[in-house]
Amino acid sequence: MKVEGRNAVLELLKTDKNVDKLLMQKGAEGSAGRIFAMAREKNIRVQFADSRALDRESETGRHQGVIAFVSEYEYADFSQLCAPKDSPRFVVVCDGVEDVHNLGSIIRVAECAGADGVVIPKNKSAQVTGAVVRISEGAANHIKVARVPGVNYAIDELKKAGYWVYGLEADGEDIYASDLTGDIALVVGGENSGIGALTRKKCDKILSLPLYGKVNSLNASVALGAAAYEAVRQRR
Amino acid sequence: MKVEGRNAVLELLKTDKNVDKLLMQKGAEGSAGRIFAMAREKNIRVQFADSRALDRESETGRHQGVIAFVSEYEYADFSQLCAPKDSPRFVVVCDGVEDVHNLGSIIRVAECAGADGVVIPKNKSAQVTGAVVRISEGAANHIKVARVPGVNYAIDELKKAGYWVYGLEADGEDIYASDLTGDIALVVGGENSGIGALTRKKCDKILSLPLYGKVNSLNASVALGAAAYEAVRQRR
Repeated sequence: MKVEGRNAVLELLKTDKNVDKLLMQKGAEGSAGRIFAMAREKNIRVQFADSRALDRESETGRHQGVIAFVSEYEYADFSQLCAPKDSPRFVVVCDGVEDVHNLGSIIRVAECAGADGVVIPKNKSAQVTGAVVRISEGAANHIKVARVPGVNYAIDELKKAGYWVYGLEADGEDIYASDLTGDIALVVGGENSGIGALTRKKCDKILSLPLYGKVNSLNASVALGAAAYEAVRQRR
Repeated sequence: MKVEGRNAVLELLKTDKNVDKLLMQKGAEGSAGRIFAMAREKNIRVQFADSRALDRESETGRHQGVIAFVSEYEYADFSQLCAPKDSPRFVVVCDGVEDVHNLGSIIRVAECAGADGVVIPKNKSAQVTGAVVRISEGAANHIKVARVPGVNYAIDELKKAGYWVYGLEADGEDIYASDLTGDIALVVGGENSGIGALTRKKCDKILSLPLYGKVNSLNASVALGAAAYEAVRQRR
């Protein structure tokens, strides 16, 4: 995707979007200097060219000497995660994970633990921005992240596809007494309110890690790490 | 501990130290307004009193109308972690964890998994600041955090006390084939260079979680979470 014009590019640079490259007209003045400085600060590659080169790249004809090339994160098709597979399937479903650090960490641990994919809802959830890709240490580029209209829809579809859906919460059954060897979806709740009430009901089971301290909860990505690795242990 | 005088308190408020309360003289003007605003922004309780009350509290006699009460984090005595115990002991040793978020998360997962304590070195390590306590969700107030001159010294002492010391790194033995039921110390490395070379040698074993993705490492607190909960599973 291209973003053209000085104000549009300035606004773009204030966001967290993945800018691959900036094409700037040689000798551009005024706010072009500020755009250049912001791009440098964000380690975005800046390429200078003459006005004709920019005219050729322009889709709007109003580039004002600046064109930014933005790469959108390529979400996977959710149906791919529902498709049959020779080995047991394993997906992670995020319910209301709104913090980009949490989402990035969740994607990282899912990828390390060999999950097939991560499912996020379109609303009330962090989306895969440049920051999330960075926080995931690039894992978001190596694992399927699928966006769905809603978590409950996703759970219904996963169940139809043969998955066992397990919510991770503090008040469930002992995870170490549970069988995690088949096709499983682990649902992790958001940092504020955990797994939603209806979503909980849709889960086949709520599973818990034992908590021995006074702090009665683990961070979402840490809990997922412990749970996903218990699945890894059982599935090997 | 008390911090007195306007400049000293202003500087204090710029740090991450735990300020319990601010005692301010009624009707104080000038920079007092700025101090009050900063305290409010940081949710620090401000109590107003007359000059005589401040004189009574002052240890220096130069309070300039402002005294801050700072609570220092109370580190545990390392020898407590080396002392005998009826049940198997479990400590976490941090080697070069410089990021406050990582340290806070490590303390939180250690507390949740029922560890006896966390050991940090005095140098090249994040210390337990107010931010770390917050990030740990208060776990730092419920678990022993001991400061030692160096990690290698701590490992020597833990070994003398009967601990098995296991480093967590990506290139070690399979953690799921390892016995974690006795007195164990898990050593986690920092975000930059992992466990130091000499420290690695001092460990009885290096243990690893299997990694199935292309991202070849887990975040320190997530790796600790998976490892500590494997210990929990084996020890129950």
